[in-house]
Amino acid sequence: MEAKELKTDLLIVGAGPGGLAAALYASRAGIKFEIAEKYMAGGQIVNTEFIENYPGFYGDISGFELAQKLVGHCRKFGVKINEYFTIDSIKEIGTAAIKMGGNRKNLECPDKAKSAKTFKFSCHGDGKVILAKTLIIATGASPKKLNVDGENEFIGRGISFCATCDGALYKDKTVAVVGGGNAAIEEAIFLTKFAKKVYIIHRRDELRAIKILQNRAIENKRIEFLLSSVIEKFKGEDKLEEIIIKNKKNNQKHGMKIDGVFEYAGISPNSELVKNLVKLDENNFIITNFNMETSARGIFAVGDVRNTPLRQVVTAVADGAVAAISANKYLNDLV
Amino acid sequence: MEAKELKTDLLIVGAGPGGLAAALYASRAGIKFEIAEKYMAGGQIVNTEFIENYPGFYGDISGFELAQKLVGHCRKFGVKINEYFTIDSIKEIGTAAIKMGGNRKNLECPDKAKSAKTFKFSCHGDGKVILAKTLIIATGASPKKLNVDGENEFIGRGISFCATCDGALYKDKTVAVVGGGNAAIEEAIFLTKFAKKVYIIHRRDELRAIKILQNRAIENKRIEFLLSSVIEKFKGEDKLEEIIIKNKKNNQKHGMKIDGVFEYAGISPNSELVKNLVKLDENNFIITNFNMETSARGIFAVGDVRNTPLRQVVTAVADGAVAAISANKYLNDLV
Repeated sequence: MEAKELKTDLLIVGAGPGGLAAALYASRAGIKFEIAEKYMAGGQIVNTEFIENYPGFYGDISGFELAQKLVGHCRKFGVKINEYFTIDSIKEIGTAAIKMGGNRKNLECPDKAKSAKTFKFSCHGDGKVILAKTLIIATGASPKKLNVDGENEFIGRGISFCATCDGALYKDKTVAVVGGGNAAIEEAIFLTKFAKKVYIIHRRDELRAIKILQNRAIENKRIEFLLSSVIEKFKGEDKLEEIIIKNKKNNQKHGMKIDGVFEYAGISPNSELVKNLVKLDENNFIITNFNMETSARGIFAVGDVRNTPLRQVVTAVADGAVAAISANKYLNDLV
Repeated sequence: MEAKELKTDLLIVGAGPGGLAAALYASRAGIKFEIAEKYMAGGQIVNTEFIENYPGFYGDISGFELAQKLVGHCRKFGVKINEYFTIDSIKEIGTAAIKMGGNRKNLECPDKAKSAKTFKFSCHGDGKVILAKTLIIATGASPKKLNVDGENEFIGRGISFCATCDGALYKDKTVAVVGGGNAAIEEAIFLTKFAKKVYIIHRRDELRAIKILQNRAIENKRIEFLLSSVIEKFKGEDKLEEIIIKNKKNNQKHGMKIDGVFEYAGISPNSELVKNLVKLDENNFIITNFNMETSARGIFAVGDVRNTPLRQVVTAVADGAVAAISANKYLNDLV
């Protein structure tokens, strides 16, 4: 992106799996577009040791390698990714008439079907301005980290944020789940299918999760609770081997040998950029319908940043494909 | 599947991309399940020459090869696919209590959230009975064929049912679209991004598509209409080279050199098996919510057979992943 100001039909913000798939489909649909990524292309998976559940790739592929495949696929179809390019702000700077009709079905947001206005967007970042007719927001989500000693070092090497992704790697091992909400307890139960022992470490003296989940965890012989406790340090050589746990009631500390820790202290959608433009749910995830349309005409959202039922590579790429096709139809409908 | 009668927690019907992804995720979640496929595993893509848009695979992979990758991935995680095993009928044979609670959010079907009953299913086929607690319907859809001479011979070798999939293969070529509905016209317009000439061949003297689409096609200089016309024969050596077109008004025939024909005479969802169990839309596609839940508790549906906004490998596999996770939660909630 050389020019100071640039006009494009579509701007895709974020080049994780969702953004990359959107770029692939947009490219194949002949849309004029730009894709901007804050860091290197690939998204969160770049930090994942193995991706075992992206259908079709089963030869011990790392997250980094899968990201490279997704990027390579885009490049084959001529996509140029603007890496290390941060979009700081997005403003609506006008409206554009839209021809209504076509066989669009607003499966989930029928109230939008007859709107006769759309928006144009002015996107600022890295000292540049991108004027776009439509946007696909693919900014992902960030797990809330514990921010304790050694944590950054062992992410992807014993510390995981996704039991669905990595649980099967811990067959007959000892793991811990950090958190006391529904997600933490559900994933702890899920992990007992693989791990011989699952500790639930929670900073409060009672769980936040609903009763039925709590009971199910209590009845599960492989689960043990460490309440009023926090991890103070992660230790190990090449991979995680031990955690230091502090009891918050008596301030006593003890070490514990552990093979894996799953952090479920929540995730935060990276929806800041459009929080004043589109409707968010109670946890700040962007609300979309089946077509990946948000509440704002012309803005689509995909992957972890939206209110998806499952946060996986495969769901993000599918979202990206759908959003690109929706954006293409949207562009075709502009006067 | 050796026994005459078999009990399983989950039966997946169909082993195309959606069913295979469901099997992969079900296997990794530790669900006891069976998967039955009428033909060979792989689904419709087995007949597609190249799959260019399944993110991550871009080395000229054929549909058959991609199907093999999806199957191989399942096998790695211990999945045994019952191929050439036809499920003929599914009956509800009872109800089972379900524990309510958990952090299930029925994003799209709130009316179901408090139902306290579920069903058990008796599935018959190939002289066997499978009793299942829950079902994932992944039976796909079948394009409506023209049923004319030479058609079967050139499917995947010049005849395609998916412009989104195969359009980019016809850069600067001459193609025809068969059909007069919205899908046909939209895809014809889409194809003008690649093909130098797109004929729309329609058997009636006017199009069914809505006006705005018709106008857009009429204004497009690359599109030419052949109304009141039908293809009577497909011809070629290794791949499609010529079509014989009959004008229905004067019964005159003429040959036309052509590189590709896209048939949009509609598709039919293979929803027959559950048509009395779940709600279908006006075109017989199974209605689901974001969790792939149908109107019937315990029955999930994925891929082309459901009312999806986009029928692609990538959307089908994502559906499969979501359905398996939903089925797992459903099974965990059974008393």
